[in-house]
Amino acid sequence: MAIQYEHIKTDKQTGARLGRVHTPHGSFDTPTFMPVGTLATVKTMAPEELKEMGANIILSNTYHLWLRPGEDIIEEAGGLHNFMNWDGSILTDSGGFQVFSLSKLRDIKEEGVHFRNHINGEKLFLSPEKAMNIQNALGSDIMMAFDECPPYPASFDYMKKSVERTSRWAERCLDAHKRPHDQGLFGIVQGGEYEELRRQSAQDLASLDFPGYAIGGLSVGEPKDVMNRVLDFTTPLLPEDKPRYLMGVGSPDSLIDGAIRGVDMFDCVLPTRIARNGTCMTSQGRLVVRNAKFARDFRPIDEACNCHTCRNYSRAYIRHLVKANETFGFRLTTYHNLYFLLNLMEQVREAIRQDRLGDFREEFFEQYGFNKPNAKNF
Amino acid sequence: MAIQYEHIKTDKQTGARLGRVHTPHGSFDTPTFMPVGTLATVKTMAPEELKEMGANIILSNTYHLWLRPGEDIIEEAGGLHNFMNWDGSILTDSGGFQVFSLSKLRDIKEEGVHFRNHINGEKLFLSPEKAMNIQNALGSDIMMAFDECPPYPASFDYMKKSVERTSRWAERCLDAHKRPHDQGLFGIVQGGEYEELRRQSAQDLASLDFPGYAIGGLSVGEPKDVMNRVLDFTTPLLPEDKPRYLMGVGSPDSLIDGAIRGVDMFDCVLPTRIARNGTCMTSQGRLVVRNAKFARDFRPIDEACNCHTCRNYSRAYIRHLVKANETFGFRLTTYHNLYFLLNLMEQVREAIRQDRLGDFREEFFEQYGFNKPNAKNF
Ligand SMILES: [Zn+2]
Ligand SMILES: [Zn+2]
Repeated sequence: MAIQYEHIKTDKQTGARLGRVHTPHGSFDTPTFMPVGTLATVKTMAPEELKEMGANIILSNTYHLWLRPGEDIIEEAGGLHNFMNWDGSILTDSGGFQVFSLSKLRDIKEEGVHFRNHINGEKLFLSPEKAMNIQNALGSDIMMAFDECPPYPASFDYMKKSVERTSRWAERCLDAHKRPHDQGLFGIVQGGEYEELRRQSAQDLASLDFPGYAIGGLSVGEPKDVMNRVLDFTTPLLPEDKPRYLMGVGSPDSLIDGAIRGVDMFDCVLPTRIARNGTCMTSQGRLVVRNAKFARDFRPIDEACNCHTCRNYSRAYIRHLVKANETFGFRLTTYHNLYFLLNLMEQVREAIRQDRLGDFREEFFEQYGFNKPNAKNF
Repeated sequence: MAIQYEHIKTDKQTGARLGRVHTPHGSFDTPTFMPVGTLATVKTMAPEELKEMGANIILSNTYHLWLRPGEDIIEEAGGLHNFMNWDGSILTDSGGFQVFSLSKLRDIKEEGVHFRNHINGEKLFLSPEKAMNIQNALGSDIMMAFDECPPYPASFDYMKKSVERTSRWAERCLDAHKRPHDQGLFGIVQGGEYEELRRQSAQDLASLDFPGYAIGGLSVGEPKDVMNRVLDFTTPLLPEDKPRYLMGVGSPDSLIDGAIRGVDMFDCVLPTRIARNGTCMTSQGRLVVRNAKFARDFRPIDEACNCHTCRNYSRAYIRHLVKANETFGFRLTTYHNLYFLLNLMEQVREAIRQDRLGDFREEFFEQYGFNKPNAKNF
């Protein structure tokens, strides 16, 4: 199999897993966070910068690459790694989430989804076979099965039908996948907030023996306690010898709470998106660097941070750049935010090593401000 | 004096000068090109990247920094070098050019210029004393005198009055300059295309013994042969033991032709500006990387270029990024264009060492396409 999960240790306080995932493009320690490079670039960043900050795996979006530049061009370039000059691991999603979130006009059939693309309205069709076809052309290390992503909330009946279809699509994905020797295909467990459906989905997919499993349909607007409750009953349903990936989660509290519930991998556009708005995550909570109060603040974004941005640049300088809409300002905030989450995951891993992730959670939540009434969610 | 010019060699074919300029923040070889960092950042670039590509001096704009973030903030940060984390040399202009080019409403008096700023229309006043004051606060290695920048063309009578005022302003700049020990103030020779006025301006300024001289009022819309003719009679008027800076020139042909006429320093936004439009300078002439014909072209921007961009990324990838408006695409084109001009200046210096700058000019012009009828001017 292209993907191997090596379990190293379980945290005695929480049951969180310390592990390592081996891919055709190197290994990464888990729990980990994957920066998102939608269009074959993590916005504003260079591959060397991602390496420098400790990223070993990034995520890229099949739907966007299919539309621009087209998977055929990337295949001709020798695959996505070559095309974008990234020799670490790459995970690609299936395109399903974008079809369901970006496209307003869509028609879900058993064979797949007819929809109009979000750029020019052109009619398109995405199916399990097509999603495999594109991802095989991209050559990512980890591919995702094509699933239906129902809205939140969805009725039990709708969700049940959707889960069953997603299981049938998962089988078709396995059949259509042409490169299992060097690309690992993950199944996606759906089922919304319904324990019975999550169990059904997990059992269906586990029987197909994927090299890894994702938990989909969370971080779609539900409250955090719902996410945690769903994780509480879902991760135990997943095979212990395979990596577990919680899709679309990137707020510091949810990363920790996800790790505590046995999740190994996370991704989210949150750190890069807020960075481009001049908002930073820090050990003391969020910092909106464009605020006037930072005009003469010559301290780093986060005095506890050791990243390139914080070692060399002041809040005053970054504020000036962000206010003037200068690219370099967004490079600096993006770098810091990604470093912050990657470093947070290293702290989580260290806490697991020391059997104290529960204590670490309390300390981190207190310092970040998550324990305050009306705390912001990142 | 803060600035010293060391003459190394004169090209036997053309009379071009090989030299070295010593500043409080290191030395640089001349002829050289200075990347422009208007708002305390060379757009899209990090200081380490500028260093890596061989830039030892950059230019920043007094007018823009005065307005945003304000020179007081930069002074409080310990000066512009600290503020922007650049430990190489910095040259700041006087703000005069922006006052005359960006502001539509202005009133030129003997004491200075009243105008409205280009951002919010606020009334402002810039004078020789104020321009010195701001640049002293910025702490640049090389400061520029505050001059009047007449439009092209201007009548002889207007230009004569303007040159005389610029000379009076130059004296006031010297008087107001508070840090001659660690900031070198350059005078600016004006006079348009009138040899008599260029002589008068050069003599006026030479008598004030500045540590360096700029040639202003060129690259303001006049034909290239006019620029070359003005340089032909102007540079011989300048002291041989001081650096000579031709302001606002950055097309490859003009850099070479300026060096041939005894110019040591150049600056221009051209390479960075066209990069952000997806246009690159290459050894074979300009390349508009966003063109459809590069969609599947996996060669580097310039096969003869050894820059980081060309060593790692294809035209197809860069085209994809530029088309999708991805920041990293503009980083890659900006890096290449700046490297191209810095490398061109290194080739010019090498040609001077070998007494063959005239031959080099012919070879370069032929390959770039400058000898073709209707050649583009960059
Ligand atoms: Zn930082
Ligand atoms: Zn290059």
